[in-house]
Amino acid sequence: MIEAVDAWLAAHRQRLLDELFAFIRAPSVSTDPAYAEGMRQAAALLEGRLRRIGLDNVRLLDGGGHKSVYGEWLGAPGQPTILVYGHYDVQPPDPLELWETPPFEPTLRDGRIHARGASDDKAPLWIAVSAIEAWLAVAGRLPVNVKLLLEGEEEVGSQSLPAIMAAHRDLLAADVLISADGGRWRPGVSSVNTNSRGLVALELTVRTAARDLHSGRFGGPVGNAPMALARLLASLHDERNRIAVPGFFDGLQRPGNADIASMHALGFDEAAFFSEIGARPGAMEPGVSLLESLWFRPTLEVNGIAGGYDGPGGKTVIPCEARAKISCRLGPGQAPAQVANAVDAHLRAHCPDWVELEISHERKGTAAYAVPEDDPYLAAVERVVERVHGAKPLRVGVGGTLPISAMAKEMLELETVMLSYAIADERIHAPNEFFRLSSFDEGLAAWARLLPELVRA
Amino acid sequence: MIEAVDAWLAAHRQRLLDELFAFIRAPSVSTDPAYAEGMRQAAALLEGRLRRIGLDNVRLLDGGGHKSVYGEWLGAPGQPTILVYGHYDVQPPDPLELWETPPFEPTLRDGRIHARGASDDKAPLWIAVSAIEAWLAVAGRLPVNVKLLLEGEEEVGSQSLPAIMAAHRDLLAADVLISADGGRWRPGVSSVNTNSRGLVALELTVRTAARDLHSGRFGGPVGNAPMALARLLASLHDERNRIAVPGFFDGLQRPGNADIASMHALGFDEAAFFSEIGARPGAMEPGVSLLESLWFRPTLEVNGIAGGYDGPGGKTVIPCEARAKISCRLGPGQAPAQVANAVDAHLRAHCPDWVELEISHERKGTAAYAVPEDDPYLAAVERVVERVHGAKPLRVGVGGTLPISAMAKEMLELETVMLSYAIADERIHAPNEFFRLSSFDEGLAAWARLLPELVRA
Repeated sequence: MIEAVDAWLAAHRQRLLDELFAFIRAPSVSTDPAYAEGMRQAAALLEGRLRRIGLDNVRLLDGGGHKSVYGEWLGAPGQPTILVYGHYDVQPPDPLELWETPPFEPTLRDGRIHARGASDDKAPLWIAVSAIEAWLAVAGRLPVNVKLLLEGEEEVGSQSLPAIMAAHRDLLAADVLISADGGRWRPGVSSVNTNSRGLVALELTVRTAARDLHSGRFGGPVGNAPMALARLLASLHDERNRIAVPGFFDGLQRPGNADIASMHALGFDEAAFFSEIGARPGAMEPGVSLLESLWFRPTLEVNGIAGGYDGPGGKTVIPCEARAKISCRLGPGQAPAQVANAVDAHLRAHCPDWVELEISHERKGTAAYAVPEDDPYLAAVERVVERVHGAKPLRVGVGGTLPISAMAKEMLELETVMLSYAIADERIHAPNEFFRLSSFDEGLAAWARLLPELVRA
Repeated sequence: MIEAVDAWLAAHRQRLLDELFAFIRAPSVSTDPAYAEGMRQAAALLEGRLRRIGLDNVRLLDGGGHKSVYGEWLGAPGQPTILVYGHYDVQPPDPLELWETPPFEPTLRDGRIHARGASDDKAPLWIAVSAIEAWLAVAGRLPVNVKLLLEGEEEVGSQSLPAIMAAHRDLLAADVLISADGGRWRPGVSSVNTNSRGLVALELTVRTAARDLHSGRFGGPVGNAPMALARLLASLHDERNRIAVPGFFDGLQRPGNADIASMHALGFDEAAFFSEIGARPGAMEPGVSLLESLWFRPTLEVNGIAGGYDGPGGKTVIPCEARAKISCRLGPGQAPAQVANAVDAHLRAHCPDWVELEISHERKGTAAYAVPEDDPYLAAVERVVERVHGAKPLRVGVGGTLPISAMAKEMLELETVMLSYAIADERIHAPNEFFRLSSFDEGLAAWARLLPELVRA
């Protein structure tokens, strides 16, 4: 049967790609209300596709924010039910001027699809849906029961997914969640993701006066907001690049022996890692390995700063306000709220009297997640990956955050197994994001094989 | 004769104001090339006016940047020649959203003209020209010889004025420079400016990678540009708010006894100073008085910072670049180039290996200036101010920078005496800049009286 499915996928490859391109063209930026229409387009397009390929009970699930798209096929009694996860929202495209081709016009170049969301997560999601379409077209049925949950808020922390899960506990009941989000390690390396970091975000605004002031007429006695912000941000790490916030590391677990063995087995080329991104080493806290730093250690990043004049030439002004967006990746064992509160308390403790400090906690946050080492669905995914790629996969961390994992565990009692065909170097969240066309074919082969692999003996 | 001049000014007041409003409407932002047309408009408008009121040899002087407007009346042989100075360029209007009325549409509200450039320096300049017009209209001549130099680059450090002075040394020869730029201390306080601070500016850019990076996929081993910038900026002051740059204070002189006496005499209300601008005390270096800090101490300000994402919501990105604009006000005795080099060297010394640092020195810089205590033209200005305001003026610092003063001294061997009718609280360089209509009338009275006051006995 798999030969017929493979043949169907080969015959319909161009149509599947054309439809993927149309999906990518919908500018579905979830964080910015200016893109509301793009969000609606992308959801409607997905909903239409799930209906067309023959899924049942296709509907939008509303949790108060951007809706999730749901569909199911439950015609395999006695077989497991998998909940397939992906997201149709994408990151903002700015800075626009750095894109070689328009972010929402997918462009095929050097065997790569260039576009915002191509890799994160539109093509990987499209692969999973296309494998399901192929099985339904060829066999008229699926080997196992399948539910799809395709959300529109992954890039803003899956904010209304808990409400959707709470309202649709039975609808979403399954044996395992299989995520089309996540990512492979490197081209040519057989790998599966088994853990991800958590995330929590804060925004801070400092004010030092009621209005911008002339730096000559007022400079000296009066505080400077960008300078005050700079000092607060500088206080967050010590001189060895280690996070200096009391309580920040509470509960953090170091990687286990199996993880450490896997990191050693990867034979990681640190020089290539830095040269690929045009960065220099030296910014990492001492005493941890690079892969541990990427997959298991928490971070405290400034995602953006702004304040005062940034136009051409100069402006001799004392800016009265400055802002920073901060986010932290979390390691295993850290509680998001505890981390946010620790950063908040540290900033307030370091804020001088002459600065008015406002801190907003943007999201509830997401804890780190790791699938149990002996999970049977993980074993099935590993067998399929080994078959498609000809090598037993290494278990790797994803570094990023899949809010779904912690939520599915907490609210639906599901473990998460990842089978994504993104690769970690595809300029995700940055200008000129791309997805490899070769991954499209590999992904279709793997997802088409996964469904029969999950059948109970 | 002065009664006839006063009467003429009263009779023509509305027309003079209407013309001032037209002058303000020309959006003459010198720092931003997008305003090139506004700069040309303002210069053409001034040139036309100088011709119309009867000045001779009216022309534009080209030093490679925005042109200066020149005109003269030299029909008083044996009498002193004064070089009247003002500038027709203004600061950028942003942030635009904070203006109550459009920045380039002068709006009369509560006896104040609200507009960018109303106070700095279009109305004060207009006052000087109008007093000259009145004398020429009423008497057919001026009591002393007058030259006008109205430049278009004050807000960008008078960059091409040295070239103009070098090329037109004879044309600009005079006995004293009288500046319509500067400012009075407070409404109701009789004052003249006798010193100003210097200025030097730098721009820095830090880069940590070739592109923005996903904070999950790369966070940990890789540096963060806004954070690196924050640490560099934070290193510029110590924990007591004192500038921590080695060599920064080299050559700085403390205020003299006469200056200290004048500061005491002002009976300065520090609480009112802070409450007026909505700021809190505590940001000033210890051991200096507030007025000394404003008029004689150097500063190191951040005029703007930018880097990464500043849109709605969040973006989990490691920005690869961040920028800051820095400027320093200079106290008496400091050399601008030495200060810029000291800041440059400090930043480079504090820059870690993983950060690429680029520093551009934006301008040549301007030294601080003080008119000699016994200058006879200063004495004449003080007599006129005492007559118009009914009280002997206090000598006050201007805090800001008049590049013209140091340049006129160096290149034309002229001292600078200031007679400006701006007041220090008129939101200069900030949204909702304004100029008091009452100052317009006071200024006309003072400038009309200054011309005969300068006649040699």
